[in-house]
Amino acid sequence: MYAVIMAGGRGTRFWPRSRERKPKHLLDIVSNRTIVQETVDRIKLLIEPANILIVTGKKHARELIRQLPEIPAKNIIIEPVGKNTAACIGLAALHIQKRVHDAVMVVLPSDHAIGDASEYLAIISAAAKVADQKEGLVTIGIKPTGPETGFGYIEQGQLSANVNDKKVFRVKSNREKPDLAKAREFVQSGKFYWNSGMFIWKASIIMKEIERCLPDLYKGLMKIKEVLGTTKEAAILPKVYKGLASISIDYGVMEKADNAFMLSGDFGWSDVGSWDALWEISAKDNQGNALIGGGSAIFTDTEGALVYSPKKLVALVGVKDLIIVETADALLICKKGRSQDVKKVVDALEAAKKKKYL
Amino acid sequence: MYAVIMAGGRGTRFWPRSRERKPKHLLDIVSNRTIVQETVDRIKLLIEPANILIVTGKKHARELIRQLPEIPAKNIIIEPVGKNTAACIGLAALHIQKRVHDAVMVVLPSDHAIGDASEYLAIISAAAKVADQKEGLVTIGIKPTGPETGFGYIEQGQLSANVNDKKVFRVKSNREKPDLAKAREFVQSGKFYWNSGMFIWKASIIMKEIERCLPDLYKGLMKIKEVLGTTKEAAILPKVYKGLASISIDYGVMEKADNAFMLSGDFGWSDVGSWDALWEISAKDNQGNALIGGGSAIFTDTEGALVYSPKKLVALVGVKDLIIVETADALLICKKGRSQDVKKVVDALEAAKKKKYL
Repeated sequence: MYAVIMAGGRGTRFWPRSRERKPKHLLDIVSNRTIVQETVDRIKLLIEPANILIVTGKKHARELIRQLPEIPAKNIIIEPVGKNTAACIGLAALHIQKRVHDAVMVVLPSDHAIGDASEYLAIISAAAKVADQKEGLVTIGIKPTGPETGFGYIEQGQLSANVNDKKVFRVKSNREKPDLAKAREFVQSGKFYWNSGMFIWKASIIMKEIERCLPDLYKGLMKIKEVLGTTKEAAILPKVYKGLASISIDYGVMEKADNAFMLSGDFGWSDVGSWDALWEISAKDNQGNALIGGGSAIFTDTEGALVYSPKKLVALVGVKDLIIVETADALLICKKGRSQDVKKVVDALEAAKKKKYL
Repeated sequence: MYAVIMAGGRGTRFWPRSRERKPKHLLDIVSNRTIVQETVDRIKLLIEPANILIVTGKKHARELIRQLPEIPAKNIIIEPVGKNTAACIGLAALHIQKRVHDAVMVVLPSDHAIGDASEYLAIISAAAKVADQKEGLVTIGIKPTGPETGFGYIEQGQLSANVNDKKVFRVKSNREKPDLAKAREFVQSGKFYWNSGMFIWKASIIMKEIERCLPDLYKGLMKIKEVLGTTKEAAILPKVYKGLASISIDYGVMEKADNAFMLSGDFGWSDVGSWDALWEISAKDNQGNALIGGGSAIFTDTEGALVYSPKKLVALVGVKDLIIVETADALLICKKGRSQDVKKVVDALEAAKKKKYL
């Protein structure tokens, strides 16, 4: 069994902590380990480090090697350019097939948080069994806690099996990010799950599906397959990769699949998509104030704050629902619920060419 | 003519910028000069530096000498212990009388901001003329802009004279800090002025008034007079000073005086009593956001902020009426209107014995 950790994110939403060279998964904002370290720490209880592949861009490879000393450097697969998840997964499948002909591959985002690691591993194990036995495309759905419009949704179909005491459902449909009305409908129906972006399948099966659903991408991948590990790879891979379609595996394959299965993952999942999401999963005092990063804080008549401070004392007086992020060269003060707009700050910095803050 | 600048303040209200070793008057929060530097810069257009005395505590003498190189070091008068304004002014008067027998002394707080320096000097000049000619106690009243409960009030009496085109009134009464209802009444009457803490009088006259109103303090001052400038001063001054009554000149003398005069000072006065007061007098953009200290800021959907940052970029998103103060080891986030409660943070730090932040 192999794990493929997709570590290609930009993560402007965690500015000023995240920068071009330090996207979200490389940050220790959820615990004192970085999010990608936690991802490896979890999955390596199931899959040995020699079988954990990390797909990333050139910019972040070095930092990943530094943060993950147990992963062999040759397992860091560098995409010449980001081309969304279908190409990324195809490239990883080629690497696996080159090593072992075929294997179950567990595809994981690098930047999610999991509250209950043992339940998570139990679900992944069951999913791997399904992927192996049914030769299908297996995905993990997350029971929605609200009508989120930032996620894709999976519609649960008929119960297909019980594996290791976990229910396995057919996937009836995959839905792209809905509007709010649609999201509410989904949640009320009780039949829809958030798409966690985790996939479990055999390398041979996903390649077959890519061939069927995305024939042009498949052709490109076959060209790469020819040169993989040869002296020609350095010249050919970037050329071919640049020409690949940029399409998500959800849109490109899952929506068209008729052999898709879903297990429900109830293990305290969060995509840690913003400072707001981080506040949600952080330990809080009775007034809902969270302090992370190692610094200290004095909360005076203050509620619902998230304070990230690596060293400084932060004193808050008479404020409510604020996100405070203190870094060496920049300070963010953001109203809670508005952390999606942190991107506007990054856009403004880009427009002003203030590269040192990006 | 002499100036006496009272520089004894603690100034916990500007934490985290103000610390025990750096009270408000030693900070460059109003401009790129410190408040005491600005005070000297203004008054030295009227009174030469050789005649400007600064009364302060031991803790701050060195920093004052550093900040005010034009003031002779012997003009820095050190109080062994803070004993409120009556003792402070008495000690300064002794120093002046020792040098020149008698002179008009202009007593100024070290920590106020003045918007219109030339009008200020015109008022001080007129006041000095009144003090000399009428041998009275002259004070500067500030036309109230609201029912402040943090100031003492001066009740305007009959018009007494016109000096240099400035109206001089008798003082009808001095009132201590009123409650809100009383303050409203004062402001509505149009007859009450804020007590600016500036006084102009001859040294001989204030000593005579201290003798009449505060005979015990006067006796103590006479003991000090005997040893001033002698080898005995170092031993006697602290001993006597510790025993002096701690009383304000307003309460101890002005309230009992029958030869008090007032000029109205309309020169953009502020006591800069808090971060809120500093916001009031700071330059602001169209959304009411003020940036001071030399750093930069991005205001996104933000109104009414005061940001103090010496270097860092501060980004604000979706917030209203916040005070942000960034220093090397501490960060304050305070709701505007609540900056009086910054003292609570200082109290908490004192209780927790976190001396490095005090």
